[in-house]
Amino acid sequence: MTRSTIKTAIVYHSGYGHTQRLAEIVAEGASASLIPIDAEGNIKQEEWEALNEADAIIFGSPTYMGGPSWQFKKFADTSSKPWFEEKWKDKVFGGFTNSASINGDKLNTLQYFVLLAGQHGGVWVSLAMKPANVKSSKRDDLNRMGSYIAPMAQCDADAAPDEMSVGDLETARLYGVRVAEIATRFAAAQKA
Amino acid sequence: MTRSTIKTAIVYHSGYGHTQRLAEIVAEGASASLIPIDAEGNIKQEEWEALNEADAIIFGSPTYMGGPSWQFKKFADTSSKPWFEEKWKDKVFGGFTNSASINGDKLNTLQYFVLLAGQHGGVWVSLAMKPANVKSSKRDDLNRMGSYIAPMAQCDADAAPDEMSVGDLETARLYGVRVAEIATRFAAAQKA
Amino acid sequence: MTRSTIKTAIVYHSGYGHTQRLAEIVAEGASASLIPIDAEGNIKQEEWEALNEADAIIFGSPTYMGGPSWQFKKFADTSSKPWFEEKWKDKVFGGFTNSASINGDKLNTLQYFVLLAGQHGGVWVSLAMKPANVKSSKRDDLNRMGSYIAPMAQCDADAAPDEMSVGDLETARLYGVRVAEIATRFAAAQKA
Amino acid sequence: MTRSTIKTAIVYHSGYGHTQRLAEIVAEGASASLIPIDAEGNIKQEEWEALNEADAIIFGSPTYMGGPSWQFKKFADTSSKPWFEEKWKDKVFGGFTNSASINGDKLNTLQYFVLLAGQHGGVWVSLAMKPANVKSSKRDDLNRMGSYIAPMAQCDADAAPDEMSVGDLETARLYGVRVAEIATRFAAAQKA
Repeated sequence: MTRSTIKTAIVYHSGYGHTQRLAEIVAEGASASLIPIDAEGNIKQEEWEALNEADAIIFGSPTYMGGPSWQFKKFADTSSKPWFEEKWKDKVFGGFTNSASINGDKLNTLQYFVLLAGQHGGVWVSLAMKPANVKSSKRDDLNRMGSYIAPMAQCDADAAPDEMSVGDLETARLYGVRVAEIATRFAAAQKA
Repeated sequence: MTRSTIKTAIVYHSGYGHTQRLAEIVAEGASASLIPIDAEGNIKQEEWEALNEADAIIFGSPTYMGGPSWQFKKFADTSSKPWFEEKWKDKVFGGFTNSASINGDKLNTLQYFVLLAGQHGGVWVSLAMKPANVKSSKRDDLNRMGSYIAPMAQCDADAAPDEMSVGDLETARLYGVRVAEIATRFAAAQKA
Repeated sequence: MTRSTIKTAIVYHSGYGHTQRLAEIVAEGASASLIPIDAEGNIKQEEWEALNEADAIIFGSPTYMGGPSWQFKKFADTSSKPWFEEKWKDKVFGGFTNSASINGDKLNTLQYFVLLAGQHGGVWVSLAMKPANVKSSKRDDLNRMGSYIAPMAQCDADAAPDEMSVGDLETARLYGVRVAEIATRFAAAQKA
Repeated sequence: MTRSTIKTAIVYHSGYGHTQRLAEIVAEGASASLIPIDAEGNIKQEEWEALNEADAIIFGSPTYMGGPSWQFKKFADTSSKPWFEEKWKDKVFGGFTNSASINGDKLNTLQYFVLLAGQHGGVWVSLAMKPANVKSSKRDDLNRMGSYIAPMAQCDADAAPDEMSVGDLETARLYGVRVAEIATRFAAAQKA
């Protein structure tokens, strides 16, 4: 089982383009397909099938009012159908979030992703990257947020997606690489 | 300031009638008005105004897939407008949830309510009731769930709203009484 | 009931002096007494009595390995005695935390404080301060962390307590003022 | 790589014997070694080395005052040393908890375990078992708690360890089997 045969899907909602940019860079790292949740909280029927067939699923959402956007939550609520049928059991899961505030309760969004992956019977992949938290640390360092269960990004309320921190983006890309690698190991052993 | 002049509003979403029944009994305890979130996650314009004028706001939602329903979250996301204008600052807040499973990640829904109330700059009221957790405890005891930050209810997946635990309902009613009493004390001192 | 007659106690653990400095400035804002938890997780018998008599209790701890320090948790576990006797019921509660990383799972420490206050039957006071999250925001702005349920501080792993952010400290001081004001309103109405 | 060559360690604190019994049955399922945290929150030096060499680590603690016991947290805080040295990175992690109340904030203990495993750079294994939440469900059913990210057990405050629910124990045993199987798949691929 090589990485090129692993199917990783990123299912995400983006309100203003920042989470979209994060999703694209995670996808680059993971060689993943992108499944955008639309402004009404829906994805297409064939995208539900793609999720059922994926080896790894990565959740993405901005943090709005202390949690994932309602559009993401609508997707999560609708996933009660594959949950009931145990379609996502034993898959590898990950996630990422962005908000304007440095903290802004982003941890709650990531913890929700863990609960959702847990209900589906999955395996959760952490970030596994030391934080940049010394006086010489810079905005563009890897894991400058100091997040652990998954990557976080922060972009000022008046900053466009193309102004996002290079460090946050590279952290997200490397997380994509990591999720795909772990899914590859997992799938190899499963099919061995 | 007497309890009769305090305005308490319960804003809630109910999918199958169980949370509706909880909302009604909390309203009975708190002498509160009911603001139902509809199946599309909306409330009426005059209901937003009623929330702005309330002394206390109580959130209610079932726990679906590890958190509040998307309809509740859509309401929460839309509350970014009164948040921006600080319309709900210093109000008294509470909440309640129901799910089919005994645990079922209900705590996460209540913790989300606390985060939302916190973002609005509110004061959160706990349940303040000892748990029923000894061998002689019964399904209809007060706080048989052993919840603390707010009341939880549990109703089997194949049970109708009229089969809910009498203990869960009475726990919810007494919480309504408590939120209104604390809001009364708070409002009295504010206006003194 | 005037603010000068309100009893506010800050019970906190500090490992390297940063949380100590935060505790002192919250105390300045709240005109509170300081109850330090020692390196073995203990406070004195008369300090337990002072907590029983307080109108408001504010919890403080660094965030270590994703949560409050074990010394704080030992204090929390020992508080099962006043919990059993309902000694802290209806008190006003608040909290604060510090860590080296910007996020560093600080939210989990604050959420634990809310759970602990909730088990004791208390009322939780949020920060109620808008975040500094635009491009012109500076390290020394109020609520530059973008925290809501209570204040957070961040100080680099190689920075001494006297290098803490002026903004974080002033945020903490104003939170102390707020908790004391809310406790004053509460106590006034209770004794009216 | 066969299951018999996988090293799984259960590191846990038990206050009154209930978590001890859970640990023993998880160990039976996982063919794991038991590392008890003592009443002062310590484990032996050779046990730290055993954890460094393990393929999988499972955390266990009662839920006291809304979180893991302080003894467990002392262990967690002390694990900052292997964290700094990245000794536990990429290991497989799991956990379990028990409390007297049906809910009793047990979810917070499990979520803390996820945060701790995440900081160490691990992979978290969920329970992956449907809840028993219909009218015909019984106390001794599998996953009668309706937990997802890991197993929970509940035992009345006046009940001895030998009175624990057979369903809770069997749920815990099957989780041990699951963690060991996933660690086996993981290790096989790693060393292939």
